[in-house]
Amino acid sequence: MAFSFDLIKKDTESSARLGKLFTSHGEISTPVFMPVGTQATVKTLSPEDLVNMGAEIILSNTYHLFLRPGHELIRDFGGLQKFMGWHRPVLTDSGGFQVFSLAELRKITEEGVTFQSHIDGGAKHFISPENAVEIQEALGADIIMAFDECIPFPATHDYARESLERTIRWARRCRAAKKDTGQALFGIVQGGMYPELRRHSAEALIEIGFDGYALGGLSVGETKPVMYEMIEASVPSLPQDKPRYLMGVGTPEDLVEGVDRGIDMFDCVMPTRNARNGTFFTSFGKVVIRNSQYEQDARPIDPECGCYTCRNFTRAYLRHLFNANEVLALRLGTVHNVFFYLELMRKVRASIGQGRFREFKREFLTKRGTE
Amino acid sequence: MAFSFDLIKKDTESSARLGKLFTSHGEISTPVFMPVGTQATVKTLSPEDLVNMGAEIILSNTYHLFLRPGHELIRDFGGLQKFMGWHRPVLTDSGGFQVFSLAELRKITEEGVTFQSHIDGGAKHFISPENAVEIQEALGADIIMAFDECIPFPATHDYARESLERTIRWARRCRAAKKDTGQALFGIVQGGMYPELRRHSAEALIEIGFDGYALGGLSVGETKPVMYEMIEASVPSLPQDKPRYLMGVGTPEDLVEGVDRGIDMFDCVMPTRNARNGTFFTSFGKVVIRNSQYEQDARPIDPECGCYTCRNFTRAYLRHLFNANEVLALRLGTVHNVFFYLELMRKVRASIGQGRFREFKREFLTKRGTE
Repeated sequence: MAFSFDLIKKDTESSARLGKLFTSHGEISTPVFMPVGTQATVKTLSPEDLVNMGAEIILSNTYHLFLRPGHELIRDFGGLQKFMGWHRPVLTDSGGFQVFSLAELRKITEEGVTFQSHIDGGAKHFISPENAVEIQEALGADIIMAFDECIPFPATHDYARESLERTIRWARRCRAAKKDTGQALFGIVQGGMYPELRRHSAEALIEIGFDGYALGGLSVGETKPVMYEMIEASVPSLPQDKPRYLMGVGTPEDLVEGVDRGIDMFDCVMPTRNARNGTFFTSFGKVVIRNSQYEQDARPIDPECGCYTCRNFTRAYLRHLFNANEVLALRLGTVHNVFFYLELMRKVRASIGQGRFREFKREFLTKRGTE
Repeated sequence: MAFSFDLIKKDTESSARLGKLFTSHGEISTPVFMPVGTQATVKTLSPEDLVNMGAEIILSNTYHLFLRPGHELIRDFGGLQKFMGWHRPVLTDSGGFQVFSLAELRKITEEGVTFQSHIDGGAKHFISPENAVEIQEALGADIIMAFDECIPFPATHDYARESLERTIRWARRCRAAKKDTGQALFGIVQGGMYPELRRHSAEALIEIGFDGYALGGLSVGETKPVMYEMIEASVPSLPQDKPRYLMGVGTPEDLVEGVDRGIDMFDCVMPTRNARNGTFFTSFGKVVIRNSQYEQDARPIDPECGCYTCRNFTRAYLRHLFNANEVLALRLGTVHNVFFYLELMRKVRASIGQGRFREFKREFLTKRGTE
């Protein structure tokens, strides 16, 4: 089945939207949060855990899979879904973000990027827009991303413009390289923190034509108001009938603010990474489980949460597991945080459906102590 | 409900027995393997995982729980079962084995053992037979163990005898200290590698009277024939109507050999620890998953295995997870190895029930390449 997007409802008070993505591995209700499975596993969770908590799509990282175990191996195993035993939709990024994070270990030319891997001790690799697409076709994700440059923050206007123009040329090459695999290809709006570059980027990508549009290069050090401004500068240029994806963002508040501004898709390592550090998201703010205040606390992490962890374990037990460096601690924490994000998006969707998204947003932010 | 043991069937060709243990947290079919949950968690597994794979009882370690999080905390949370969310039976050891493993960090007197903890940087602690029982009563396991000295291997006859006499006096003090909590108290047969000391130990313990009898101090460096000899020296002295528990043993072969010699209960870290190293037990021997031969292997760990891991994942994927240092690797491996042990005991019980245990044993050892 080819990829498609149905816009089900538009909120009247905000730019929030309710939609549905259709892929050959299943449907996805939007707005959606995609847990991050960097190395073909959402760290600590089994596919069964993800299904049980209602995840509909996960993200995996092309850069990591290209280096290990290699995209050919995954292709030979029938694609990422079969390889990792997750039979629902997957999105892969293009590898751009990770490659550009390598700083002095990479060199950019018009053709592509040469870089030294963080794994095999400096072996040189080359990724061009064409082979970023080819690698992602081998990985077999339902949604794949154009190869872009994610510029550092802060960046000068000159550098941002120059990089953006190259990213647009790369986007065109990605579009041209893409075979008829049934996979969706998303373009990525860049332009640093310059609203007019963001607008220009969005317009240029729309002219090329993609199955969806992502906003990249945000949550990289700028303030929240600047991030929101960049979303607001980009989204109005994007077509209503295509999904919009805010890459690598963010906190629960960021998700709600993103939805308010018309974003349909999110991914972020925050819930999984924080969980492994013992920091849990709740309806009333953060719980840092190693704190001594939880030593004898017989309550679940969040008494309002319905996740496996909160239904079965106390803060005192979780604190014990973290203090004793038990592997189970990482998983139980991840189960909670990912469930919290997924549940948040379920509530967001319900509130849009009921025409009370802004009311939900107000209550949510007040209770979290962030408004 | 008080603890009891029903002997259901005795094999005619061997000393194998089929039985059932009754505890206030549920029944246990014997012969049984008890997965080890040292710090109030079977490493990497949730209680749900354990239930799904059919575990009926787990073991936890008094020494570790005494130090962290402390037995009073666990008592205040309603005992180990409630604290860790495992609502089936638990057995705790007495802490003796761990304390005596501390070597120069501990000092034995008639009264008990003074030791420096491995956790809190040398804080001094004291465990006597009386407070070993008290701690275990606080932990609330269904089966608790007498405090014994587990002597080093090899040990002289003089030392073994002297230690054994003290262990017998300690066993008597444990029995006297034990309150009417509904918990079963097991005595531990010691005596090093000296058959007559083993016999003497068993007889002395029977005179004191326990709810079950364990064999301690085995699988500590002696050869297999010596271990089997010690089992054979001890078991005939033990009463038929009480369960017999071979502590800390062992390989799949050891379990089958133990059952053949009349053992009802086993525990060992081998399946869990090996799993975390990427070494898996199968019906045809070991699989060391990091080996390059598995790089493109699309088969499950053991094609005959019905565990969650073997039903869902290939060797190639598991190898990738181990190479990428992913936490999920540890859990999927543990699921397999613990399932393998539990399934082995299910097959052992079925074969005893069908009067074909020896036939099963022969086939099992032949296929494993160990006979």
